[in-house]
Amino acid sequence: MDKFTISKARRTDAIGREVKLQGWVRTRRDSKAGFSFLEINDGSCLANLQIICDAERANYETEIKRLSAGCSVTVVGQVKESGGKGQATEVHAEEVTVHGWADPEKFPLQKKRHSFEKLREWAHLRPRSNTFGAVARVRNCICNAIHQFFQAEEFLYVHTPIITASDCEGAGEMFRVTTMDLAEPPKKSGQVDFEMDFFDRPTYLTVSGQLEAEIFACALGKVYTFGPTFRAENSNTSRHLAEFWMVEPEMAFYDLDDNMKLAEQFIRHICATVMDECREDVDFFNQRIDDTVADTLATVADRDFVRLPYTEAVEILEKSGEPFEYPVAWGENLQSEHERFLTEKQFKCPVIVFDYPACIKPFYMRVNDDGRTVRAMDVLVPRIGEIIGGSQREERLDVLERRMAEQDLNTEDYWWYLDLRRFGTVPHAGFGLGLERTVQFVTGMSNIRDVIPFPRTPGNAEF
Amino acid sequence: MDKFTISKARRTDAIGREVKLQGWVRTRRDSKAGFSFLEINDGSCLANLQIICDAERANYETEIKRLSAGCSVTVVGQVKESGGKGQATEVHAEEVTVHGWADPEKFPLQKKRHSFEKLREWAHLRPRSNTFGAVARVRNCICNAIHQFFQAEEFLYVHTPIITASDCEGAGEMFRVTTMDLAEPPKKSGQVDFEMDFFDRPTYLTVSGQLEAEIFACALGKVYTFGPTFRAENSNTSRHLAEFWMVEPEMAFYDLDDNMKLAEQFIRHICATVMDECREDVDFFNQRIDDTVADTLATVADRDFVRLPYTEAVEILEKSGEPFEYPVAWGENLQSEHERFLTEKQFKCPVIVFDYPACIKPFYMRVNDDGRTVRAMDVLVPRIGEIIGGSQREERLDVLERRMAEQDLNTEDYWWYLDLRRFGTVPHAGFGLGLERTVQFVTGMSNIRDVIPFPRTPGNAEF
Repeated sequence: MDKFTISKARRTDAIGREVKLQGWVRTRRDSKAGFSFLEINDGSCLANLQIICDAERANYETEIKRLSAGCSVTVVGQVKESGGKGQATEVHAEEVTVHGWADPEKFPLQKKRHSFEKLREWAHLRPRSNTFGAVARVRNCICNAIHQFFQAEEFLYVHTPIITASDCEGAGEMFRVTTMDLAEPPKKSGQVDFEMDFFDRPTYLTVSGQLEAEIFACALGKVYTFGPTFRAENSNTSRHLAEFWMVEPEMAFYDLDDNMKLAEQFIRHICATVMDECREDVDFFNQRIDDTVADTLATVADRDFVRLPYTEAVEILEKSGEPFEYPVAWGENLQSEHERFLTEKQFKCPVIVFDYPACIKPFYMRVNDDGRTVRAMDVLVPRIGEIIGGSQREERLDVLERRMAEQDLNTEDYWWYLDLRRFGTVPHAGFGLGLERTVQFVTGMSNIRDVIPFPRTPGNAEF
Repeated sequence: MDKFTISKARRTDAIGREVKLQGWVRTRRDSKAGFSFLEINDGSCLANLQIICDAERANYETEIKRLSAGCSVTVVGQVKESGGKGQATEVHAEEVTVHGWADPEKFPLQKKRHSFEKLREWAHLRPRSNTFGAVARVRNCICNAIHQFFQAEEFLYVHTPIITASDCEGAGEMFRVTTMDLAEPPKKSGQVDFEMDFFDRPTYLTVSGQLEAEIFACALGKVYTFGPTFRAENSNTSRHLAEFWMVEPEMAFYDLDDNMKLAEQFIRHICATVMDECREDVDFFNQRIDDTVADTLATVADRDFVRLPYTEAVEILEKSGEPFEYPVAWGENLQSEHERFLTEKQFKCPVIVFDYPACIKPFYMRVNDDGRTVRAMDVLVPRIGEIIGGSQREERLDVLERRMAEQDLNTEDYWWYLDLRRFGTVPHAGFGLGLERTVQFVTGMSNIRDVIPFPRTPGNAEF
């Protein structure tokens, strides 16, 4: 007998097939006419499948009539056309085997809706709910779209290190990684003796794989990373995670224009793939979570992204008359409220702001001929603000060393990064996309803790 | 003008095209007839492309004749049929632009071959060598094959946490993650006060995502993880890394037979994909690194894997008469030498050993009816030994609790894992594949440090 997913069994071409289905009961309803309806779900799609069990089944009274939300079952039966609303098919059960019960007195996910806050405490059960099942499918779809995009463009996927002794840009607090006994760390001359630690030096969790990705781009052309990154910032907000996933493409012989073009194609590809492959889930998010989601996805697919120099962006913001909380001034970072104004109100589509002031950007971004700005770019999208940050990299050894000196960085710590400019240096560029912000953008989920399976935030590392 | 990769320009269908190529010089040779040959590489394939530059180019004397290994160039020219050996095409340069020089007195990667040990010190330059370029392409191909396989089988990719407060199976030393000041860690009653740490408790780097993957399998059916995992073991061998990548599929409603079948299909798919997409690189490894590589890949694709109960494996080993370093006895783990004997000498193909003694396996593996063995499996392949380890999971709450008690585990620490058995428990199974061992298997590279971009081992966290 064919094992069928519910997704397949819901299609009209399954009608007439004898199938085996395995999943979890969402609801049971008993008819006075002597049969019961089960709604079961197996994660293959958002919708449930209706199972009709008549009283003649041997275990009807002993088991079937005791089934409740969360119980696991195998159902063997025939797929038939359904007269019910919102479903093309239903299954008439010949056999229902119960694998596991879920005591309705104790199982938390009863029919009543729970807040997302509450569900975070039950992160081991929330994937069994409609919303978190849909988030998991969309997140998977986005990840797959990311790999497909870069593989089709002949990028190589590279794994940059998670444990690192360097700190990329000096930006962001880092977690320390150690095997030392914290109660009695070994000391030398009163200082912690890191030569006694596992790696013979202080080590941290990476904040970005960019610098190492540049190594591979400067050898093999086009590469991308896709892995976890970390920030030890004590930010208890709906926008920050201590552990999140990032995609970082890096391309030799690309300038900022090439970089912007790639970023635009990339975002478009993700949105188009999700609309194509997760239509049912997108409709769900549009109905239940945020009714702008479907329109936004369509806009991204349709309209060219606006390209806007930072200096013009500041002028627009200054003239806007909007009552911003943070002041706007050339030489200051754009705040989320400024970014959202540009993309949501001013242009109503994604905007790429580029050529930022050198003074607010890291040392590795290529300095423009004006000496004041660097070849940085941020892609802004509605609701989220910055979804991508990137730049053309400084490939000139002397300029790079000068910038490092300005920012008080020790060039010895970056000997290998400088070597890339000493030996066969090339113009190159890259960017980073935060996966969780992308999932938020596509689903409309407002809290970043709800788009990653097990969020890590200050005070939270359960599961 | 079309930007071409060298891979494309080497094909006969490029003949006659005007192309722009960008890459790095591998060698330069000057002919007395007044022109020079450049071999350039851009990472798109193993082979170089021959460029012919005649003396009429404006920068012939000033630049072209100064080019050496490692310099970066853009070449514009026409693809022509080549009379040279081992190449179908060559390019007659109309323009050669130099982007970056590589002082031959200082650039380490000269034509002379360097040992892999030496190249590890130059991990920022080794991707520019033939071997490490080929490793990068094969590793990318394997990663892509992994995602393609599971996506085609309708698995969902899930991200299990990297920072964790639980330790999976109590197996393996863990790295601690902290933001505390190691010089003065906060203390309470003389003990380190982890309530003052970032997550309000002791946290570590994950050794496996399995337990969390089970959460998603028990909600959505079939899932897989693919991410970094960590071991803080002080093992300075060619087989161990402190940071490595692992793939862990987990499937609801799968028993051990289903699990073995999936593992076999999975390994086959990886081998077939690499042979199909990286033929040139595989041939290179077969010629230069290990001349059994191509045959082994073909064997895996051709022959069914042997399935062998652990008890029979022990009997075979006991009767073999081989002079093993470690003794063989029922109830002991198989050592690498035993595994290799089974797969290389006894069966000459991959072998799946299953039903291991309960006493040497973790608490979460399903206990067989004999009470002495569990539904564990290891897939053994030539040269590597164990490449996959997996099991059917114990889905019975009472048996699981008994096994945890036997192994002195605190059930309170695993409340959420036990909840999966309290609410709608299902038979399920899964396995883990080490990515680096897979790359070693496919390439024949003998040291695991040479198949990951930036190896992390005791004392090594450079780059």
